[in-house]
Amino acid sequence: MLPQDIIRKKKNNENLTSEELKFFMDGIVDQSIPDYQVSALLMAIYFNGLNADEMATWTEAMLFSGDVLDLSHIDRPKVDKHSTGGVGDKISLPLAPAVAACGVAVPMVAGRGLGHTGGTLDKLEAIPGFSVNLSVDQFKKQVDKLGVCLMGQTSDLAPADKRLYALRDVTSTVESIPLIASSIMSKKLAEGIDALVLDCKTGNGAFCESLKMAQDLAFAIQAIGKGRGKKVTALITDMNSPIGWAVGNALEVKESIEVLQGKGPKDTVELTVALGGEMLLLAGICQKIEEANSKIVEVLQNGKALSIFANMIEAQGGDPKVCEDLGRLPSSSKTIEIKSKESGPLARIDSRQIGIAGIHLGAGRRQTDDVINPGVGIEIKRKPGESINKGDVLALIHADDKGIAEATQIIESAFSFEGVPPTNDSRIVEIHR
Amino acid sequence: MLPQDIIRKKKNNENLTSEELKFFMDGIVDQSIPDYQVSALLMAIYFNGLNADEMATWTEAMLFSGDVLDLSHIDRPKVDKHSTGGVGDKISLPLAPAVAACGVAVPMVAGRGLGHTGGTLDKLEAIPGFSVNLSVDQFKKQVDKLGVCLMGQTSDLAPADKRLYALRDVTSTVESIPLIASSIMSKKLAEGIDALVLDCKTGNGAFCESLKMAQDLAFAIQAIGKGRGKKVTALITDMNSPIGWAVGNALEVKESIEVLQGKGPKDTVELTVALGGEMLLLAGICQKIEEANSKIVEVLQNGKALSIFANMIEAQGGDPKVCEDLGRLPSSSKTIEIKSKESGPLARIDSRQIGIAGIHLGAGRRQTDDVINPGVGIEIKRKPGESINKGDVLALIHADDKGIAEATQIIESAFSFEGVPPTNDSRIVEIHR
Repeated sequence: MLPQDIIRKKKNNENLTSEELKFFMDGIVDQSIPDYQVSALLMAIYFNGLNADEMATWTEAMLFSGDVLDLSHIDRPKVDKHSTGGVGDKISLPLAPAVAACGVAVPMVAGRGLGHTGGTLDKLEAIPGFSVNLSVDQFKKQVDKLGVCLMGQTSDLAPADKRLYALRDVTSTVESIPLIASSIMSKKLAEGIDALVLDCKTGNGAFCESLKMAQDLAFAIQAIGKGRGKKVTALITDMNSPIGWAVGNALEVKESIEVLQGKGPKDTVELTVALGGEMLLLAGICQKIEEANSKIVEVLQNGKALSIFANMIEAQGGDPKVCEDLGRLPSSSKTIEIKSKESGPLARIDSRQIGIAGIHLGAGRRQTDDVINPGVGIEIKRKPGESINKGDVLALIHADDKGIAEATQIIESAFSFEGVPPTNDSRIVEIHR
Repeated sequence: MLPQDIIRKKKNNENLTSEELKFFMDGIVDQSIPDYQVSALLMAIYFNGLNADEMATWTEAMLFSGDVLDLSHIDRPKVDKHSTGGVGDKISLPLAPAVAACGVAVPMVAGRGLGHTGGTLDKLEAIPGFSVNLSVDQFKKQVDKLGVCLMGQTSDLAPADKRLYALRDVTSTVESIPLIASSIMSKKLAEGIDALVLDCKTGNGAFCESLKMAQDLAFAIQAIGKGRGKKVTALITDMNSPIGWAVGNALEVKESIEVLQGKGPKDTVELTVALGGEMLLLAGICQKIEEANSKIVEVLQNGKALSIFANMIEAQGGDPKVCEDLGRLPSSSKTIEIKSKESGPLARIDSRQIGIAGIHLGAGRRQTDDVINPGVGIEIKRKPGESINKGDVLALIHADDKGIAEATQIIESAFSFEGVPPTNDSRIVEIHR
C-alpha cells in the first residue's frame, strides 16, 4: 500500500477502505508518512469529504493512536459536553458541577482559546492556583470522588490529532467538517464517556457561521458517535452576540459563579440549563426534558452545584474562597466606559469583533506562546433588542496597558443600530436528540 | 504574506495575484516554504485550477527560477517541438534534423521515459557513445553550428519544476492541466525559443486519454505561450496504438534512421511531416502548410536530414556510422514471435500495454534508478485494420533474459480482434494554430 495511491483515491472521490484509512493513520502516528503526503490527503478530504463509514474509521484510528481512559470503576453514567467555541462561552464552568451535582460523572478534557474564541482551560486558570495539568490517574480519581474534573489535553489522548491539527493549521485545511468532527470525537471518545452533548454554535462569532454548516457538523459528530455506540445529542445555539455579560477569563469565572449562586444573565443560565438537561437525559437520570431542566435549576438555586465547583477548585489546587468572595479573582488596573453615540434599539453586537477586541487587551492569544492576562476583558452592559439612549454605557473595558485604543475602536463599531433587532432572545436554535 | 493564506485563497477558488504566486514560487525555490505547504497548494490547484493569467504568472515564476538560454547570437528562427508522451514516439529523432535541414534552429531539451511512455534521451543513448549530458555552452555552440542539438535537462533550467515534479509524483497531483502545462512551458521557454509545436497525444497510450483533456492541455499551453509572446501550434494526435513498428530504444533509433533514409512506416512519416511542416510555418520559412510539408518530405528523401542527424551524433560523441549500418546499434540476444490465435480484422493494439511490456523487458524504468537495456523492445508486425490469419506473426519480442514471460502474455492480450477496426489511419486528430 502506497500513501500516494490512497491520496489519489480520495482525490478521485473514491471511498477509502478501513485498511487504507488505518494504514495512513498508522503512518501519521509513527511518522513513516511524511507531512507533505499528509497535507495532500487533508486537502483532498477538504474537497471530497469522508462518508459516515470513513469518518468512523478515521476517528477510531485517531482514537486508538493513544490511550482511552477506563472509567469503568465509576458507577455513575459518564457524560460530557463539547462546544464548538464561541465568545463569552463559559458554560462548561457552571454546567459541569451542576450536572455532577445531579449524579452524573463529567470527565471533561477541555481546550485552550483558539482565534477569537475563548478556552475553558484559560478561564479556569484565572482562578488563583488552579491547575489543569493533571495526570490521568489524578483525573480519574477526582471524577470518581467529586463527579467532575476539568483538565487539559495530555499527550496520551489521541496524539494523532495533535500532529494533524498542527498541519491543518498551516495548510488551511482546518475548515473541513469531517476533519473537525473526527478531531473533536477522537478526543472526546478518549475520555471513556458513555454519551456526549454537543453545543454547536452558529452565527457571526462561531466557526460555523451558517446554520447549514452547523447542522452538517452536528450530524457528522452524531454519525461518528453512532459508529462507536455512543449517543450524541446536538444543540445548535446562537452565537450572533456574546454570551452573558463577560468576555475575558476572570470576568467569565465571575459570571459563572453568579450562575452557580442561582443568579447570572438569562442567556448563560438558559444554555446551562438546556445543555445540562440534555446531559441528564442521556445519563438516564431523568426521562423527560422538563424534569431534567428543573433538576439543573434546582442545583443552581440550592448551592449544591456551587459547592461541587468549590470542591473541584480546591482539589485542583485553586482558591475555593473565590466562590464566596469574587474580589479574590484577578482584575485589571483600569476600566473604560464605552458610551453610545446613538439612540434607538440596539440591533446587534458583533461577537467576533468582541472576541478580537479581547485578544488586543491580552485576554486571548495571537500566537500559541502568548501569555494571557487573566484580569482583562470586556463587560457587555446592554444586549441586542434593548432601547438605548445616546450616552448610555454599552460596555466596560477592563484593561491594563495593552490594546486599549484598538479595543475601544473595535468595540464601538461592534455595537450596531442598523437593521432589525432580534425578537427571539433564546439561544437555542435546534435540538437533535 | 503567509503561505497558508495563499493556500486558503486557492482552496476557496479565489484567483491569486501575481505577487502571491511569485511569493509562493520564491519560497519553493529558496526552500523557505516547506513541502507540506507546497503539496497542499498543489492539491488545491488540482481541484480549483489556475486561470490563464495565473498560469502565465506561475510559469513565468518557474521559468525565472533558473536561467533562460540566450540564443540571440543565432540568426535562424528557433522553434522546438514537445510531445506529451506516447508509445513508440520517436518522432523527435527524425524531426529535429529534418527541420534543421530546412533552415530552422532546433534547441531541444528532451526528457527521459516516464511510466509506460518512452523518452527521447533514452533512445538517443542507444546510439553507441552518444552523450546527452552537455554544458549549456556546448549546447548553444552546436545549435549555432548544426542547427540542432538534443540534450538532457540541466539543473540551471527551471529548477523549481524539479522540486515541484518530485512532490507531485508522491502526492498524486501529477494529473492537473495547469500544473502539467506550466511544467512543460517553464522548461521549453527556458530554451530561448521563438515558437513551439505541441504534439498533444490522446487515447489509450497517452496521458490525456480523452480528446477533451488533450484539448484542455493544448489550450492551456497555448495560453501560456501567448502570455509570453510565443506562438504555439498544437496538434492533437492519436495514441490508441503504438507509433510505427518499433517500441524500445535501439529499435526506435533504427526506425528513425529509416525515416531519415526516406523510408519508414507511414504513421511515423506522417507525424514527422505534419509536425515539421508546422514548425516551418511558425519559423516563417514557408507561408503555406502544403509547401512546408513538401519541404520536410524533400529533406527526408534527399538525405539532407540524415546527414544533419549523422553530424549531430558525431558532435555529441556517438558513432555516426549507425546511419549507414544499422547493425552497429545494440540488439537483443533473442527474438520471440507472437503469433495470432485468431483470424479476422485486427481491431486494436493497446499501446499502454505494449509500453508496459517494454518495461518488463528492460526498455523502460520501474524506478528512476533502473538501468535501461537499449537492445530490447517490441517490433509491431501488423497494424489495426489489417486482415489477419491465425498463425500470422503479430509482433516480435526482442529480449535478453528479463521479462519474456510477462511481456509475451501482455502483448498477446494487447492485440484485440474485438470491436470495429479503425477506418481512418491518419494520426492527426486536430490542428490548432
